[in-house]
Amino acid sequence: MKTCLLHAKTFARISERLKSLEHKLDVIVMDEDGLFYHAGNRVVVHDPKPDIVFANTDVWFGAHVRDFMLTVLKTGKIDWFQSSAAGLDNAALISVGKISRLYTTNHRQAEAMAEWALWQGLDFLKCGPAYRAQQEERLWERHMKREIMGSNWLIIGFGSIGEAVGRRVQALGGHVMGVRRSPGPADGADHIVPPALVHEELGKADIVLLSIPLTEDTEGMADADFFAAMKEDALFMNLGRGGLVKEDALIDALDAGRPAFAALDVTVEEPLPQESALWHHPKIAITPHDSSMTPGTDHRADETFLDNLERYLHGKPMKNLVDPEVFENG
Amino acid sequence: MKTCLLHAKTFARISERLKSLEHKLDVIVMDEDGLFYHAGNRVVVHDPKPDIVFANTDVWFGAHVRDFMLTVLKTGKIDWFQSSAAGLDNAALISVGKISRLYTTNHRQAEAMAEWALWQGLDFLKCGPAYRAQQEERLWERHMKREIMGSNWLIIGFGSIGEAVGRRVQALGGHVMGVRRSPGPADGADHIVPPALVHEELGKADIVLLSIPLTEDTEGMADADFFAAMKEDALFMNLGRGGLVKEDALIDALDAGRPAFAALDVTVEEPLPQESALWHHPKIAITPHDSSMTPGTDHRADETFLDNLERYLHGKPMKNLVDPEVFENG
Repeated sequence: MKTCLLHAKTFARISERLKSLEHKLDVIVMDEDGLFYHAGNRVVVHDPKPDIVFANTDVWFGAHVRDFMLTVLKTGKIDWFQSSAAGLDNAALISVGKISRLYTTNHRQAEAMAEWALWQGLDFLKCGPAYRAQQEERLWERHMKREIMGSNWLIIGFGSIGEAVGRRVQALGGHVMGVRRSPGPADGADHIVPPALVHEELGKADIVLLSIPLTEDTEGMADADFFAAMKEDALFMNLGRGGLVKEDALIDALDAGRPAFAALDVTVEEPLPQESALWHHPKIAITPHDSSMTPGTDHRADETFLDNLERYLHGKPMKNLVDPEVFENG
Repeated sequence: MKTCLLHAKTFARISERLKSLEHKLDVIVMDEDGLFYHAGNRVVVHDPKPDIVFANTDVWFGAHVRDFMLTVLKTGKIDWFQSSAAGLDNAALISVGKISRLYTTNHRQAEAMAEWALWQGLDFLKCGPAYRAQQEERLWERHMKREIMGSNWLIIGFGSIGEAVGRRVQALGGHVMGVRRSPGPADGADHIVPPALVHEELGKADIVLLSIPLTEDTEGMADADFFAAMKEDALFMNLGRGGLVKEDALIDALDAGRPAFAALDVTVEEPLPQESALWHHPKIAITPHDSSMTPGTDHRADETFLDNLERYLHGKPMKNLVDPEVFENG
């Protein structure tokens, strides 16, 4: 019998799917009030010692994320942690990784994030800000718009997010240049180039997307030189981490007219401070680091967990296992 | 030798492609000042008598569309008219159709219109208005968004536009119900239903799109009963003609909370009058009947003309020929 810790909302969605495992799995849930109890008999558990932990976004966006993670860390050792996140650039996740025998990630938030990129890309190509401004003025004025069909996208960081964006852009008739260390081919990209060639490609792209992890090598990569190498009528988007961008340089570049617009789901400081000049810049659209936030993302993370749970219980190879060395150095 | 009338802008784009036909084709262009002249020697032509006329959007959005069409009509008889439009619900086009031996349409504006539908669909599913409003207030607030993936689209009128929308929605993982008289299957639709079943399908759709011609049967079809049959959280879009919609009923329906939002590229009266309540309704997005307006649309209409020109000059069957009877009854 293994003890498994879940958020109550996660359990509500997948409880039917867990029924056949009742003899193998003792489920403890944390509810919206931060209370832990046995899912079966609803008896309160004061000091849960889970073997398995699945932290879906119900945990991360819930009120008691801190209690959940502290409870996990307090055990000192767990057997398997399934994260709903793709990355590891978070102190709590690294701490959990250090005490987990098995640690698995999830990459299925990429689908919703790719739709965010299409949304922002279309709003730019279709002159969304201009139409909204003229509707305010009751102006019936036509605009020559651009098309995704035939547009050039430069996707910097071609992991699960880059691929999910690229496949959609290709399906809509656009061209995709992907940037990653390992050479191509890659699903969702017409061509793959290494990071060293990014600056040569910037001048060809109508839309430039950052979907690369934040590391010492990538921090501040979108700087004055980067923006100066873009096309004047191009869109810059960031779905990665705020630290990839030098925000002052971005504002200067937009003010100078190159690139034409920026869509940011992430900022250096989050929540973005009230006094930030990004908020009211007329050429910037901001979303609060929630591009992945859809019921579909939650559901797909559940599926990732259930698939890995089946593998775990039957001793089969699990998906998205992180090499333990990553945490040792973290 | 055939005489062919084009707008100067159209000629500028395709002149290289016409070079090999110089011995068969005498091209006359109308420029931005409404002046007609021989494309070859730039000599002014006072009374052009074209055999062939191609009216791309350069004509329709140009300053001298009236002179162009009156010149064509004054000839009393032309051999072939290539329209850039898909439809015939326009007095000038019907008049031209009556004096044309061959009249061909173009359906390649569907691509840009389909991108308009994706743009409006995504802005709705991704809570565009909410994010823009909170950016004004410098608010960092997350929203549960929806996905095109798995969404249900009801596309009423499944011709070239409906198909172009449907193929894109399917490529992004959405489900497409198409409505048209002739039974399915159809590219871009999971299912086809006849117009009589529209009301039964309305309650299942997240997004409802009108892309059907305006006729006696369809005029005012989107009325109070139609909106009442929709889902509360659904989007209504119109890419057809304004007359398909009872605008007062739409405003009442939005005020009552069903559907949630409307995106309109067409209105009953165009340009939309200053005093219309549609302009400042918080649940309506308006574009000025220009969803198709992209360089790509112009380019694809050029291709339609060039393809048909090849067929015309070699006596092969032409594409998109309209049955002359249509004009006799018009």
